[in-house]
Amino acid sequence: MPAPIFLLTDFGTKDPFVGIMKAVISDINPNIQLIDLTHEVPPGDIRSGAITLWQSLPYLPDGSVILTVIDPGVGTRRRSILLQSQGFTFIGPDNGTFSYILREGYQAWELGNPDLALPQTGTTFHGRDIFAPAAAHAASGVPASNFGPLLKELIRIPQPALSWSGTGRLEGEVIHIDRFGNALTSLGQFFPQDQDTYAFHPWIGECLQAEINLHKSQVHLPGKVKLSWVANFTEIPDGRCGFIVGSSGLIEIAANRQSAVNLLNLAINNKIILVV
Amino acid sequence: MPAPIFLLTDFGTKDPFVGIMKAVISDINPNIQLIDLTHEVPPGDIRSGAITLWQSLPYLPDGSVILTVIDPGVGTRRRSILLQSQGFTFIGPDNGTFSYILREGYQAWELGNPDLALPQTGTTFHGRDIFAPAAAHAASGVPASNFGPLLKELIRIPQPALSWSGTGRLEGEVIHIDRFGNALTSLGQFFPQDQDTYAFHPWIGECLQAEINLHKSQVHLPGKVKLSWVANFTEIPDGRCGFIVGSSGLIEIAANRQSAVNLLNLAINNKIILVV
Amino acid sequence: MPAPIFLLTDFGTKDPFVGIMKAVISDINPNIQLIDLTHEVPPGDIRSGAITLWQSLPYLPDGSVILTVIDPGVGTRRRSILLQSQGFTFIGPDNGTFSYILREGYQAWELGNPDLALPQTGTTFHGRDIFAPAAAHAASGVPASNFGPLLKELIRIPQPALSWSGTGRLEGEVIHIDRFGNALTSLGQFFPQDQDTYAFHPWIGECLQAEINLHKSQVHLPGKVKLSWVANFTEIPDGRCGFIVGSSGLIEIAANRQSAVNLLNLAINNKIILVV
Repeated sequence: MPAPIFLLTDFGTKDPFVGIMKAVISDINPNIQLIDLTHEVPPGDIRSGAITLWQSLPYLPDGSVILTVIDPGVGTRRRSILLQSQGFTFIGPDNGTFSYILREGYQAWELGNPDLALPQTGTTFHGRDIFAPAAAHAASGVPASNFGPLLKELIRIPQPALSWSGTGRLEGEVIHIDRFGNALTSLGQFFPQDQDTYAFHPWIGECLQAEINLHKSQVHLPGKVKLSWVANFTEIPDGRCGFIVGSSGLIEIAANRQSAVNLLNLAINNKIILVV
Repeated sequence: MPAPIFLLTDFGTKDPFVGIMKAVISDINPNIQLIDLTHEVPPGDIRSGAITLWQSLPYLPDGSVILTVIDPGVGTRRRSILLQSQGFTFIGPDNGTFSYILREGYQAWELGNPDLALPQTGTTFHGRDIFAPAAAHAASGVPASNFGPLLKELIRIPQPALSWSGTGRLEGEVIHIDRFGNALTSLGQFFPQDQDTYAFHPWIGECLQAEINLHKSQVHLPGKVKLSWVANFTEIPDGRCGFIVGSSGLIEIAANRQSAVNLLNLAINNKIILVV
Repeated sequence: MPAPIFLLTDFGTKDPFVGIMKAVISDINPNIQLIDLTHEVPPGDIRSGAITLWQSLPYLPDGSVILTVIDPGVGTRRRSILLQSQGFTFIGPDNGTFSYILREGYQAWELGNPDLALPQTGTTFHGRDIFAPAAAHAASGVPASNFGPLLKELIRIPQPALSWSGTGRLEGEVIHIDRFGNALTSLGQFFPQDQDTYAFHPWIGECLQAEINLHKSQVHLPGKVKLSWVANFTEIPDGRCGFIVGSSGLIEIAANRQSAVNLLNLAINNKIILVV
């Protein structure tokens, strides 16, 4: 049985781009399970794709192939790669999309074998011409070394802000706004410890670990807004906001059946401080 | 062969929420067919989800599992359930989403077996932590009684308006607006009988049955608008509206290649009267 | 193993229409792979559906079934058909959606066998009642002649503009706007030949073939805007536009990480001239 392929792109759903990639895969191997993560990464927004990939990865079956195409540099000399890390195989352009899931011991190969791509490859849709065929062949068991030469260094994009300023102020930023109007921040990950405390293990970067009592902490936003911790969405009074430990262990600014982002006029990159 | 799983949520498609749920299912059993009903139920709109579920059910294969997560109360003490009714298995929060498909003889169990959930369950994403694993195990043949204790009563939400006022006036309301701008009403179901009449069998509630000649009936809307019956969309003159028996047997306010909702400024809960 | 079914509709994703069609297919044969091309064809826009179908077809596995439902005339006397062309089987209403993929030697049958449809067929959702069952049966190997009588002529819609005006001016129009704000034009197809020239093979209609040096050509838009050829998106200066040979061999008006359509205020049907 071939590995499943998870698809993550900025292609949207109004064009047949994703369907065509799936057709290419099905033509190579009709037995591969195809699962969409999302295709609504904002066009060309590599950091957003990298965050979504990091958020999804812990729940993917071991051995899965992840086909990730956010590719504003398509047709330039940027490299096409197959990456192996943590037991997964990632396929996509080498433009930083994999920055937040790279772990020690990863290996990467440049996609260069024309037998594992479509016969014609243009300059505008490598998702179809190069990445979808590579994903299909990888999921079918073609060894990584067949795809091309081993690579040394991959492109990395900057990490989201996450640092201590003094001992009691953990500084971060808004990194994603979800469907419900919750603002995901870079503050995390937090794992429930005992009744009062959370273990803070930075999900990225070099920030120091700590034990933190979130119940007694506050989130400070621009404009002197201060928010308190809540255990779940329904604890937040109507028209107000709070902060919650979201499903990936990151602090989220949230409201109850309302959009916190609208209520507080939040945007990506807004500075957020956790005062512990 | 496992049962297929149909997914119905308010998670939208811009975040990886649905993809992550499918990953969890695929990890438990990669042979399950996964089919989306829709993920664009308005956030937290339980009634809308309940209507969509009612509308879809007659076309699902016998034995299907339906994973339904519209869950504004996630993380509170609201119950998580497995429901069996009409040969189907439903998984989701007990918040009323199943109100319109409950039939006599249904049985429900509270999801409480930690072996049939993810090892960690947070307070914000039970679709991933509890409901997706439960659906995967149910589709794979795990007996309902393994999930937890039997339940007596389920939460029910109010039914849409549907009643006779006098003998000749059937009163209802707009319950859904579709992609094309048609307004689905609670007036129905109507089944074609002979050349002139339809059999009216109330789809919900205690309203009296009748035989009705829709060709001679009128739909009255707020603002004294009166509409006539049409056999299909193309019979409606440009810029005008009519009413039609839609694909679920409910009366719809429709236009021809235009949005009836825009033309008439209709909204959910608008009062609609069929004068027979 | 049954053939895969590719789905192309204007049903959107907010209603359960597509999920219900897939349920009907899964009920007939649960082993069919179901792949979405797109469901966001603008409501009732047959030409847009026809273009998307043409664009997708070269990448579909031989023998695929394509279920195409853009059906503003549902419930009227327009015919429902099964079409065989180029080794594919197409199912949908006979309203012109297949105009751009019809090739010599095609054969079509009218869907008329009630044993290959749902027991009840209404007047508003033939995607569910007629086309989805037909696609499932066709993908499962039911011979075309079982569905109904052979047809002579199919409905065709007008072709997009594509013609020479004098020797050096190739006239066309904007035919689609994609997710990224690129404007696809009817000018094409262009296939790279040698360093300087492209072979122009008209994708439709009777326009004369030619060899064209696109590097020395210009695209003229309404309002005296003139654009130059680029090899890839990143060559276009910020805030400016260029033209590129897109993934289907058609000329596209494009920008670099911006919407060309917004920058130039382009719309479907805008006249475009390639001056060679």
